[in-house]
Amino acid sequence: MYSIGIDLGGTNIVSAVVNDKYEIVASAKTPTNSPRSAQEIFDDIARVSFEAVEKAGLTMKDIESVGMGTPGTVNGEGVIEFANNLVFNNVPAKQMLIDRLGVEKVYIENDANCAALGEAYAGVGNGAKDFVAVTLGTGVGSGVIVDGKIVNGVNFAGGECGHMVIMVDGEQCTCGRKGCWEAYASATALIRQTKEAMEENPDSVMHQLAAEEGKVSGRTAFDAMRKGDIAGIKVVDQYIKYVACGLINLVNALQPEIICVGGGICNEGDTLMKPLQRFVQAERYSIYSKIQTKIVKAQLGNDAGVIGAAILGKVKED
Amino acid sequence: MYSIGIDLGGTNIVSAVVNDKYEIVASAKTPTNSPRSAQEIFDDIARVSFEAVEKAGLTMKDIESVGMGTPGTVNGEGVIEFANNLVFNNVPAKQMLIDRLGVEKVYIENDANCAALGEAYAGVGNGAKDFVAVTLGTGVGSGVIVDGKIVNGVNFAGGECGHMVIMVDGEQCTCGRKGCWEAYASATALIRQTKEAMEENPDSVMHQLAAEEGKVSGRTAFDAMRKGDIAGIKVVDQYIKYVACGLINLVNALQPEIICVGGGICNEGDTLMKPLQRFVQAERYSIYSKIQTKIVKAQLGNDAGVIGAAILGKVKED
Repeated sequence: MYSIGIDLGGTNIVSAVVNDKYEIVASAKTPTNSPRSAQEIFDDIARVSFEAVEKAGLTMKDIESVGMGTPGTVNGEGVIEFANNLVFNNVPAKQMLIDRLGVEKVYIENDANCAALGEAYAGVGNGAKDFVAVTLGTGVGSGVIVDGKIVNGVNFAGGECGHMVIMVDGEQCTCGRKGCWEAYASATALIRQTKEAMEENPDSVMHQLAAEEGKVSGRTAFDAMRKGDIAGIKVVDQYIKYVACGLINLVNALQPEIICVGGGICNEGDTLMKPLQRFVQAERYSIYSKIQTKIVKAQLGNDAGVIGAAILGKVKED
Repeated sequence: MYSIGIDLGGTNIVSAVVNDKYEIVASAKTPTNSPRSAQEIFDDIARVSFEAVEKAGLTMKDIESVGMGTPGTVNGEGVIEFANNLVFNNVPAKQMLIDRLGVEKVYIENDANCAALGEAYAGVGNGAKDFVAVTLGTGVGSGVIVDGKIVNGVNFAGGECGHMVIMVDGEQCTCGRKGCWEAYASATALIRQTKEAMEENPDSVMHQLAAEEGKVSGRTAFDAMRKGDIAGIKVVDQYIKYVACGLINLVNALQPEIICVGGGICNEGDTLMKPLQRFVQAERYSIYSKIQTKIVKAQLGNDAGVIGAAILGKVKED
């Protein structure tokens, strides 16, 4: 059997037909062109979904269920209560998809949770029932899976682990709190930390690297470190310590089988992952346990979202 | 039907017969006298359990299941892998209880998790499926319940929310990390904060209060605050802020229906709970959600552990 996974993003809408081995059979995409009315956006979602089904050599009758990941908060009735960057307020997403696609089983979920599901079932999680996915991007996104199900909490706003404070009275976070993990461990935070170090170290090779790239990026300090630049090394060491701090917090609270770390910064590979794993090993509360949480790099990249969305039907019904 | 709940503590062993309304029908207790051999301790556990059953006017044939809460880490086979303060190492607790009580359904669980279950099912949780219990005592204990089940994690060491860092490079914690929530929000931490404030404020009424009580306690700063002592007010304000920080972290990660706060400090009642609730309301990520996590005072006190243990059979089989 087949299902459709949709990733409604701020930039693009992607729809993919996924088979029961969690493989993408065909996909189609179109720009979101937000802000637009929900009607227009959902018409485009339907259009690319029919397009993906046709590409797969199928019809909607072959589709068992449809899942969609969206930014923002989705309630139990499949209504997007609030999605800041789409300017959506109480959009009845589930019903709008049922009406347009003619498929009865439709599931809507937050996009970070879909990505977590995708990695847990079809990616690096390999079916792990207790799993956390963390994405180091503009913010620090996360999805928490306990006993095979997404932890939505009482109001479907659960899983915002990026907004756990690791530094009381620390850096201002966009959420209003001070000292959130996101304010130290996101790519945005790394860029801020890099810029601060550059100001303090006018001789650092980071200035040259940033000039060559045309901007300070999440790579600047890592590249400088590889050139032996002391200031770059310090930025990277401190950044990795911040990332590790939040990971260890999650290990101590939940002891999941796997925590996977994704986002652009993860392209650093072992340069990032090895020290993270060492920090976790040294500081976790469960030092005496024979079984330990694995800290691994995400595997599916951008596909995690659509695959996770396509799996929603399976997960929500179990 | 009836079940037995046992609380194996560092000081006392308590065994209670609990009915299907989660009420204690009869109980018996004896000193733990630790360190002793596991054989001796389990003989005493059996003795008080038979005593409790007799007091209830029942026999072991009326007992459907037995649950026990213990300090330390308990694995899936009911073996206490490690319990520091009982000097237990790989004690086959489940089998030892089956042998001594002749009841087949026996369940062993960490004591903080039992207390959480007790409050969730029979106390302030009133059956809440997503529930966190936090105890502010010598340390900060916690039990996390998701979808009606204890979050044990992959190695049965989950739920150690007291060991989530809220201050990178902060106060040394007994677990080895620096800046754990426990190092700021436990009764032990409050006493340390009170002593530090007393040193800095030789005129504070806290000196007099401590002299009258014969020691600095978790009450000293609260009592001083009630007398209008500025140093006392500052200690209490800061302490409540630390407690709130960890609670908000849990709200943002899990959005449980209820977080209950227990331990001796909670005797302060609304003096503690009202400002905690205000902090959570102001800082939680889910400011737009209609439904919000309730922050409430624990209800069952010391009974939470035995009642939770008695419920284990029901919860583990569902």
